Amino acid sequence: MPDVLGQGGTIGILGGGQLGRMLAVAASRLGFRTHIFDPAANPPAADVAHALTTAPYDDAAALRAFADAVDVITYEFENIPTAALDLLEAMRAVRPGRRALATSQDRLLEKAFLTGLGLTCAPYAAVGSLAELTAAVARIGTPAILKTTRFGYDGKGQVRLNSPQDAAAAWAAMQDAPCVLEGFVTFTHEISVIAARGLDGSVACYDPGQNVHEGGILHTTTLPARLTPAQRTDAVLMAAKVLNALDYVGVLGLELFVTEAGLIANEIAPRVHNSGHWTQNGCAVDQFEQHIRAIAGWPLGDGSRHSDVVMENLIGDDIMHLPAIAKERNAAIHLYGKAEARPGRKMGHVNRVRPLGH
Amino acid sequence: MPDVLGQGGTIGILGGGQLGRMLAVAASRLGFRTHIFDPAANPPAADVAHALTTAPYDDAAALRAFADAVDVITYEFENIPTAALDLLEAMRAVRPGRRALATSQDRLLEKAFLTGLGLTCAPYAAVGSLAELTAAVARIGTPAILKTTRFGYDGKGQVRLNSPQDAAAAWAAMQDAPCVLEGFVTFTHEISVIAARGLDGSVACYDPGQNVHEGGILHTTTLPARLTPAQRTDAVLMAAKVLNALDYVGVLGLELFVTEAGLIANEIAPRVHNSGHWTQNGCAVDQFEQHIRAIAGWPLGDGSRHSDVVMENLIGDDIMHLPAIAKERNAAIHLYGKAEARPGRKMGHVNRVRPLGH
Repeated sequence: MPDVLGQGGTIGILGGGQLGRMLAVAASRLGFRTHIFDPAANPPAADVAHALTTAPYDDAAALRAFADAVDVITYEFENIPTAALDLLEAMRAVRPGRRALATSQDRLLEKAFLTGLGLTCAPYAAVGSLAELTAAVARIGTPAILKTTRFGYDGKGQVRLNSPQDAAAAWAAMQDAPCVLEGFVTFTHEISVIAARGLDGSVACYDPGQNVHEGGILHTTTLPARLTPAQRTDAVLMAAKVLNALDYVGVLGLELFVTEAGLIANEIAPRVHNSGHWTQNGCAVDQFEQHIRAIAGWPLGDGSRHSDVVMENLIGDDIMHLPAIAKERNAAIHLYGKAEARPGRKMGHVNRVRPLGH
Repeated sequence: MPDVLGQGGTIGILGGGQLGRMLAVAASRLGFRTHIFDPAANPPAADVAHALTTAPYDDAAALRAFADAVDVITYEFENIPTAALDLLEAMRAVRPGRRALATSQDRLLEKAFLTGLGLTCAPYAAVGSLAELTAAVARIGTPAILKTTRFGYDGKGQVRLNSPQDAAAAWAAMQDAPCVLEGFVTFTHEISVIAARGLDGSVACYDPGQNVHEGGILHTTTLPARLTPAQRTDAVLMAAKVLNALDYVGVLGLELFVTEAGLIANEIAPRVHNSGHWTQNGCAVDQFEQHIRAIAGWPLGDGSRHSDVVMENLIGDDIMHLPAIAKERNAAIHLYGKAEARPGRKMGHVNRVRPLGH
């Protein structure tokens, strides 16, 4: 397979949620077709994709047929089973590559990787038993958060410990899964850097956005973030360091806490990221197209921002506000085509756009 | 059928070219599915649509099944056969409606409609024979252009008469099709207004863009257009007058010549228009979403422009410049996924974006 995907080439996407949907739209702008692989019927991305495979990730025949039908493979979520990856990688390039996935699938590996690069993380300890949890709490203190090392997202697989007495209940809730205890850091706010690295090793970063969460789920991302010029530079350099160390190809999200002592790395997501949705209405090349450009071997867009943006997620019943939002001036709506609005379910987002600096 | 299309509703689009493709993408942003009807296999819009019907426009069974499968019907081109429209209209709302189609399908009707509204058109005459052409040339003078009254686009079905001696050859080239002879007007430049009217009768216009054609095909549209404030107001009022007179629902393009004596109406297109592609990167709500909003019964976007834009069509071999364009700063690329670059074929466009007033 040539490194640069030709016009009319097909991009395989593992996962057909809203990220896959917006990747498919961006791919269409560059003249590519997309083929979605998802275990669920009627995934949101299928509405805008050329082809859909509905099969579980352990269906080797379906994975093989999928790989056969596409030119390059990417994904919208990091928890892809290893066996599926093994099979796909043997047939087609999977971008971003294995190292990024392995690192981000495991919170312990991720923290070791980040600290190994010289980034600061919150204090943490591996926890495989109640005894280890008790020892970790004694060292790190409370409040602290116990998280499964794998398969957590949007606040799932997490328990907060407000005092050492919470240890037994917290450990019981984890059902013997390998965990990591993370200490709290005192931060003023959270930001994230959406950064990309091309096949040729070039790197492009978007301006950091400032994130506000509600109930463990991202609520808003605001551009520009409240940052000193030095912090802004630090954030971007950290992201570039991560990209290079992973020999990364594609878009990556790096979440950082802003503290008086500097920036503390929270986590990386080896994919387009909810906190990068603002780029759809703030930049000539958004994070979805940037990702497609990278994995297709195209030059990256430069990431410069033409407008200030506040991105707000529409979660669950937020979708009921749609009639009012549709009447707002300069509000760009992005819905995911999900039939049912369940609590906590991301139904869409709105980018409220303002001229730079206003 | 309710007037306001609910989340997850399906929009049927007649025609699967690039306009249908970009309408489908815009529909996905609002949570709608699209179903494309096109006689050709593998139309560009099918890559991003939920469903595709491949059938000729005289296949009544296919048209009926298509109408059954969708909630509302629109189109990307105005030359839809009357019998197909009759059948579809009986089953579903077709927006924009019949009056807009009938008017724009026939250059004579269109000119009578526009002059009836008080707009100025170039001098014209109906031509059904060589004798009528000779008489028309005597009245209107040369240079003049003889056009078939129906089914012309992108410079096709047109012959230029440089002198009265050209009449016989021009008439012969038309093969007895009903024609209209149009006189030339001395204009400094051409503009177009992309305007929309909602189901509730509200109207929203984008700023006029300035068009440059090459070989009868649109080459660039530049925002802002060179216009006095009075001309800008006139242009927008003309578009609104047309929309109201047609009881229009959707986006319409109105081409105008700018002359020292004022604006002269050239033609209307009852659909999204090539000269409105700049809105994709200049406005929070682009022409494609505006059209979907209108036909779905949503509130219109306000049409305000956050950036200046120069839209350039990539025609035929222009696509060879893609590697260089991809490296440009602030160039937003939109490709149509067409496999083969034939001369005169619209392969994509690029929107070059600048901050307002720079």
